[in-house]
Amino acid sequence: MNIVPENLFTRHRQLLEQAVEAIHSRTYWSPFAEMPSPKSYGETANDDGKKAFEARLGKPFVLDQPGTIGQTGAEQSPFGIELGIAYPKPDVDRLFDAIQRAETDWRKAGPEAWVGVALETLVRLNRRSFEMAYAVMHTTGQAFMMAFQAGGPHAQDRGLEAVAYAWSEMSRIPKIAIWEKPQGKNEPLKMEKRYRIVPRGIGLVIGCCTFPTWNSYPGLFADLATGNAAVVKPHPGAILPLAITVEVAREVLADAGFDPNVVTLAAHQKDDHVAQTLALRPEVKVIDFTGSSANGNWLEENARQAQVFTEKAGVNPIVIDSTNDLKGMIRNIAFSLSLYSGQMCTAPQNIYAPKDGIDTSEGHLSFDRLASAIGEGIGKLLSDPARAVEVLGAIQNESILQRIADARSLGEIVIDSRSIAHPQFPNATVHTPLLLKMDAGCESKFMRELFGPIAFVIATEDTAHSIALSKRGAIEHGAITMSVYSTHDTVLDRARDAAAEAGIALSCNLTGGVFVNQSAAYSDFHGTGANPAANASLTDSAFVANRFRVAQSRAHI
Amino acid sequence: MNIVPENLFTRHRQLLEQAVEAIHSRTYWSPFAEMPSPKSYGETANDDGKKAFEARLGKPFVLDQPGTIGQTGAEQSPFGIELGIAYPKPDVDRLFDAIQRAETDWRKAGPEAWVGVALETLVRLNRRSFEMAYAVMHTTGQAFMMAFQAGGPHAQDRGLEAVAYAWSEMSRIPKIAIWEKPQGKNEPLKMEKRYRIVPRGIGLVIGCCTFPTWNSYPGLFADLATGNAAVVKPHPGAILPLAITVEVAREVLADAGFDPNVVTLAAHQKDDHVAQTLALRPEVKVIDFTGSSANGNWLEENARQAQVFTEKAGVNPIVIDSTNDLKGMIRNIAFSLSLYSGQMCTAPQNIYAPKDGIDTSEGHLSFDRLASAIGEGIGKLLSDPARAVEVLGAIQNESILQRIADARSLGEIVIDSRSIAHPQFPNATVHTPLLLKMDAGCESKFMRELFGPIAFVIATEDTAHSIALSKRGAIEHGAITMSVYSTHDTVLDRARDAAAEAGIALSCNLTGGVFVNQSAAYSDFHGTGANPAANASLTDSAFVANRFRVAQSRAHI
Repeated sequence: MNIVPENLFTRHRQLLEQAVEAIHSRTYWSPFAEMPSPKSYGETANDDGKKAFEARLGKPFVLDQPGTIGQTGAEQSPFGIELGIAYPKPDVDRLFDAIQRAETDWRKAGPEAWVGVALETLVRLNRRSFEMAYAVMHTTGQAFMMAFQAGGPHAQDRGLEAVAYAWSEMSRIPKIAIWEKPQGKNEPLKMEKRYRIVPRGIGLVIGCCTFPTWNSYPGLFADLATGNAAVVKPHPGAILPLAITVEVAREVLADAGFDPNVVTLAAHQKDDHVAQTLALRPEVKVIDFTGSSANGNWLEENARQAQVFTEKAGVNPIVIDSTNDLKGMIRNIAFSLSLYSGQMCTAPQNIYAPKDGIDTSEGHLSFDRLASAIGEGIGKLLSDPARAVEVLGAIQNESILQRIADARSLGEIVIDSRSIAHPQFPNATVHTPLLLKMDAGCESKFMRELFGPIAFVIATEDTAHSIALSKRGAIEHGAITMSVYSTHDTVLDRARDAAAEAGIALSCNLTGGVFVNQSAAYSDFHGTGANPAANASLTDSAFVANRFRVAQSRAHI
Repeated sequence: MNIVPENLFTRHRQLLEQAVEAIHSRTYWSPFAEMPSPKSYGETANDDGKKAFEARLGKPFVLDQPGTIGQTGAEQSPFGIELGIAYPKPDVDRLFDAIQRAETDWRKAGPEAWVGVALETLVRLNRRSFEMAYAVMHTTGQAFMMAFQAGGPHAQDRGLEAVAYAWSEMSRIPKIAIWEKPQGKNEPLKMEKRYRIVPRGIGLVIGCCTFPTWNSYPGLFADLATGNAAVVKPHPGAILPLAITVEVAREVLADAGFDPNVVTLAAHQKDDHVAQTLALRPEVKVIDFTGSSANGNWLEENARQAQVFTEKAGVNPIVIDSTNDLKGMIRNIAFSLSLYSGQMCTAPQNIYAPKDGIDTSEGHLSFDRLASAIGEGIGKLLSDPARAVEVLGAIQNESILQRIADARSLGEIVIDSRSIAHPQFPNATVHTPLLLKMDAGCESKFMRELFGPIAFVIATEDTAHSIALSKRGAIEHGAITMSVYSTHDTVLDRARDAAAEAGIALSCNLTGGVFVNQSAAYSDFHGTGANPAANASLTDSAFVANRFRVAQSRAHI
């Protein structure tokens, strides 16, 4: 198949314009169906996707990529099935030689071609959403529904959002301007000025093991849409979803007549520190990273030749002041703590409530009874194993299990973490959340991220104290989300001020079908860049504007 | 006087909208008259401005600024008049205490208030353009006309351009959005989302001694327009223009009911390294710098808590391939080399021409005759002392004189630098340019910035070699501008490609009233950020988008 790249742009122009409209209005919109329904994806989509996934197992993943010097990869399914997929292991020097050759034509192709290729890649990825769902499920431990949504359409939305931002910025720079300066009675000075978007260089996209596509697509598609080549380096625990992504992007590039090495995969195993080698290459000018604070800070400190965008650890707070829907609040919090076993950068960890208790729709509730109610809410939500595993998913890696074990001694246990047998996958590692309670004095215990299904109910002096702890926690240790429950507008306003100053996205009185963990593309800014949890936001202008430069030439006419 | 800040926004709304239109169309536009004419500025404007300037001399410059612990400042007029102005010397800790108090209300005021204050400050500065012209003239050594234009209206244009970019980015983020997600047959999920622009922190603006206002206004007004406080640290050689700027900004802030310490002056003398102390303050989150590569690189390396925007040294090339207007070309180049004695980051230094000469409207011209013609062009332009001093201005500082003396031995002298007696200022330091010629083999001699009236005519193998040297010079040593002369479209296209890849603004065949040194606000991007001469552009989206964050809150409705 051969496509003129500009035709891809024309083909997807309406999609692009709708996305640009969505990021500016920030209302609900998505072109990608989030339900894995045959109506949207076709009657055989699930079977086809499952077969495509299963056909990958126990085999080398073929990517015709230069500089391959053997195989790598040792992913483990948290659901306990055998994966056994081997990926091409790159020789970094030879890989970069190939990328630089591929860059020559790509850099000159211009915004319409770049955006066209990016959009076509997203649309083709959407058709692969079922295959992607199984790939995400069996690397991250997400239950199927989340793996489908977060790994497929929602990730594609985040990618499209980044393309829309990039286009929005690039398209405001005219290709040509006529500059005519009056000179009194003399002839005006008249010049033609030409402006050219110049990509910054090679982008390195470093994925994480819990949301390999959702967290990587903004950087990957922002790079592509602005004409940069992209090297995709997956977490060794979740390679397959990004390998499929790279495969699709390379197909589109080749179809559009570009050298596919504009997008390459740099897979590696746990003991192989290729990320640092890649990050320090002088050709790498943009890095997008999701992962630990240690690695993110290392990149910010050391990869000085690149613009580095990081999302790192944080401690997300919930402030409970009062509620007129106690049951709704408990149900909502229990779900937020349980969803994907808290293995989300948006999952709450520290629940602050006044030591004297709270006013509720069902009368005053003591601190201890509030803590118990949350624990009971979790217990109720997860009482049926078949339902529980669809909420919890599986534990991504051993270190999280160890963290649960270590955390038990940190406070008084409200509800203990317990193992659940998965009805479908006998070897799956499924554990319910551990909920502890403690006094606000024990700061050293709760003021750090304990990634996974671990949360604290913390007794504070009063709500002002709860808000102050939330704010300081975010400023010192980072936070992406904050949740507040209050029937008082003044409390909500104070929480809004604190959250704004600390750079946290605030959710107020969530008692229904929206959860603080969820961030909607085109509408919710994910991260602000204003606290240590992230130095950038997914996605705003600042996320794209620095990925390209404008070069100009002028001449008299 | 007391003004509601929002009224300032309304008052200047049309000005803002025109500026936003101008940065997107990039045609010629300016609200600030560039000619120092009584018709635009009033019959007494020159006299009033001169008197206001003279009233500053030999006295303390009064700024009611907290934390003042004495006086500082020892500027020398390159025209040799006595200045003797003393500025408040700040205690940095106490100054920052005051700024942090001032920030509280300022940060919450919101985009309309920030932009309103920024625009009113620019409009009031415009009325002070004559006073500013004398201040710029007698600190930088610019001749009056340039001091008026570059120090006054053109600097105000660059400030307004930054405000327009900031507004363009901020205004695309809605204050409120209604997000309504369909839920099949169930009621839709419906939320109100509020978005708030959160300034990044304190901005530090570090000025230079040659264009104290032109180079500082983009950063200063970008900071103000996005709600950041700004500490203005002038170069010890050119304090007065920025002190007047700070004075005006503080008046506007006070009139609008804000604490004037949102904008403060941190003046110092040559031996006092307050810049480093200021740059490493944890509260400083944005730094704008113009100056040496050593200082700029130090900031980029060390001020890790801040977003650092730098403009540093560069080596600007001219490529001469052929011309059909030899006289126009010579005249244009001679003026570009002489204007303000080459003390411009946009002034050309390395003139590359083929060793076998060039084709011109007047027949073939050997390399040596071309070099001589440029030398003669300079001689002719500067033959009349009264006219020469209005082009050359004066030499800003001693180190430039020393550099001229040292450069004489670098190549064969085409035309030597000579001293000119200023008809009006007997103690002024005025020198004509030094033009040398050499072979392209002598790279170590010409591949570095020799700031001031020093230029080289360099014999290359051919035009391809000239373009390659220009490109590599920019990539390795930085460059802001490039000029090319050719009658062949293929050569112009090759120059465009090279300039784009090296991140240089290219001018083609300038033979008339536009000079490569000149960069027009709203139309020309000054610097690209794509080579070592600058890590940012004045002004594009990337220059403003990272000065603020967006914080959001959401609640069901």
